[in-house]
Amino acid sequence: MSEPNARDVATTKRLMEIAQVWYDQMGAGDVPSITLPTRTKYNLEFNDSSEVWTYGSKESTRNAGTAKSAVHMLKMAYVMGFIKMQLAENRSSTLREMYYISEGWKQAKFSAQNESNYLVEDLEIITNLQREFFHMRPEEDGASIFGPIRVRESTRRGMKEIHCQDDVGEAGYHIPNNVENVELVDHDASCVIAIETGGMFSRLQENGFDEEYNTILLHLSGQPSRATRRMLKRMNEEMHIPVVVFTDGDPWSYRIYASVAYGSIKAAHMSEHLATPAAKFVGVKPSDIRDYNLPADKLSEQDVAALRAELSDPRFDNDFWRKEINLQLEMGLKSEQQAFASHGLDFVTKEYLPNMLSEMGVLKR
Amino acid sequence: MSEPNARDVATTKRLMEIAQVWYDQMGAGDVPSITLPTRTKYNLEFNDSSEVWTYGSKESTRNAGTAKSAVHMLKMAYVMGFIKMQLAENRSSTLREMYYISEGWKQAKFSAQNESNYLVEDLEIITNLQREFFHMRPEEDGASIFGPIRVRESTRRGMKEIHCQDDVGEAGYHIPNNVENVELVDHDASCVIAIETGGMFSRLQENGFDEEYNTILLHLSGQPSRATRRMLKRMNEEMHIPVVVFTDGDPWSYRIYASVAYGSIKAAHMSEHLATPAAKFVGVKPSDIRDYNLPADKLSEQDVAALRAELSDPRFDNDFWRKEINLQLEMGLKSEQQAFASHGLDFVTKEYLPNMLSEMGVLKR
Repeated sequence: MSEPNARDVATTKRLMEIAQVWYDQMGAGDVPSITLPTRTKYNLEFNDSSEVWTYGSKESTRNAGTAKSAVHMLKMAYVMGFIKMQLAENRSSTLREMYYISEGWKQAKFSAQNESNYLVEDLEIITNLQREFFHMRPEEDGASIFGPIRVRESTRRGMKEIHCQDDVGEAGYHIPNNVENVELVDHDASCVIAIETGGMFSRLQENGFDEEYNTILLHLSGQPSRATRRMLKRMNEEMHIPVVVFTDGDPWSYRIYASVAYGSIKAAHMSEHLATPAAKFVGVKPSDIRDYNLPADKLSEQDVAALRAELSDPRFDNDFWRKEINLQLEMGLKSEQQAFASHGLDFVTKEYLPNMLSEMGVLKR
Repeated sequence: MSEPNARDVATTKRLMEIAQVWYDQMGAGDVPSITLPTRTKYNLEFNDSSEVWTYGSKESTRNAGTAKSAVHMLKMAYVMGFIKMQLAENRSSTLREMYYISEGWKQAKFSAQNESNYLVEDLEIITNLQREFFHMRPEEDGASIFGPIRVRESTRRGMKEIHCQDDVGEAGYHIPNNVENVELVDHDASCVIAIETGGMFSRLQENGFDEEYNTILLHLSGQPSRATRRMLKRMNEEMHIPVVVFTDGDPWSYRIYASVAYGSIKAAHMSEHLATPAAKFVGVKPSDIRDYNLPADKLSEQDVAALRAELSDPRFDNDFWRKEINLQLEMGLKSEQQAFASHGLDFVTKEYLPNMLSEMGVLKR
């Protein structure tokens, strides 16, 4: 067991401050209380400096004056104590494990997984720290990365320095669930291409698109995990590498892009850590379906409803998306990114992406 | 572009033999035809020597005497031509890409993805080769591996030798989608533990279970992909490493075990390549829920129906499973593998697994 590091010490201190406030309140004869921003979509505000959507100024206060609220704060105290112990012992756990551990907390036992998840989110908001700082591990892995970037990962078995092209197999370097343990060392990349499907990730790799244009390929594997979004943000902010997102051409894929670029409503309090506002959408665009005559399927009722919902979503409220979404509703069609194969297996790497990325000013050819 | 290797040459030869038969049939004035085993569950047979379920002796013949069958064989000819080209040029593609490429095949164009998938499966059956030999890439990645085994992967960027503990980050070595490109070099392992959830995979890794007992940890990540199952089989057969499967304690997880150990009905023709009959189930067993007093949820109606279906599934037709499944139906409960955390974060690695694996004769302590 190693000594707690500086990050762990600072995290513990922040958590203990919450308890100190309660202690002081009780010392002064007051009922202990806690104040949090209201977590509904009516309290979402666009933050001009960070360019992401976060919770606004509406707040609600919970105090221990009722039995229900007192029990809630008791649970919070147990969770803080559990996290403090984890950090001191340099251990970690999943939300699911903590839920089961609460079996031993008597009155503070959680009655459902949602309850403990929500409480950890509350602590994230109060401390303005990500749960990874609490050593709460997400269940999902991060994505695969393949390209000209070198990372240094601090693992329980020592420091590992890995070049994400030279030191890995074809499946690439896999982002660990706690990205804070990864240091970005150096790179020789023109951009990161975050790709929705495994098929397209492998296509770009097989066609040598990472070598020819010095691009970092990242496999989103559907809706990206926290670790993946955090990694994209860090590559963009720390190393100034442009990020583009390449998905299927349907409303569900546009939401993948939105969660990378603008953050999600569910985790708006984490947007400043997880969203990459500079990320651009490269395709498949509805206009691509038309311009490249891509094999397409008819939009389903659900697709149409999702597109309409996006038209009233503040994250899609700009000229580009209004035009594209309206075009798609007109055409009534959607296409997958692998549909470019109808023009041959090289079309996407020889024609489509070089043209698009040059137009967007991302690629130096 | 490198020279085709011996495996590719042999694969091409097998495919060309199919065309040769048609050619000879036509030369003799016969209508070309093709014979295949019937692919229904009524034609599943237990193969005593390989200990897996495969297709039996029922066959059906398709000949080009009708327009429908003639078009089907035309499509097969196009697919064989496409694969031949892929192998000659050392390229690969996904089933999805081939489906889109068929846009250019005029009358032989596929009308639905299922049709092309099925046709590739037919070719697997006729040639007795896996689709990976055709360079048809699955969409899904393989699992993560972490433990004392060294592999040598032949990649498009040269040969990479990787030790799955020393040369990787905490997310482990990621199995590439074509396991045939991986050579198993050496190992120092007592067993492979194939684990359903990411939370438990990380728990065993964090607790150092791979080091303390020289175990290889493998994250199944739900229903295992072809690449994962092939890798498990190869570690078991080529390196004689025992394989155990560790999942949640519910009927859906038992099916994960069954697909590892016995193969799936859908891909019965591949069972000899993908199934590991020697794989053992370690838990969570219904008797564990009782013996360890694990936090549990009530079985849903779907759970009960799935358990009943398993009682009549030949793959579960033995004393162990009958007893456990009947016990579970009696108790009406199911538990997750992370429920062991209710006894503390070390319980699973200090108590449960060492006891179980010793009892099963897998662990040398």
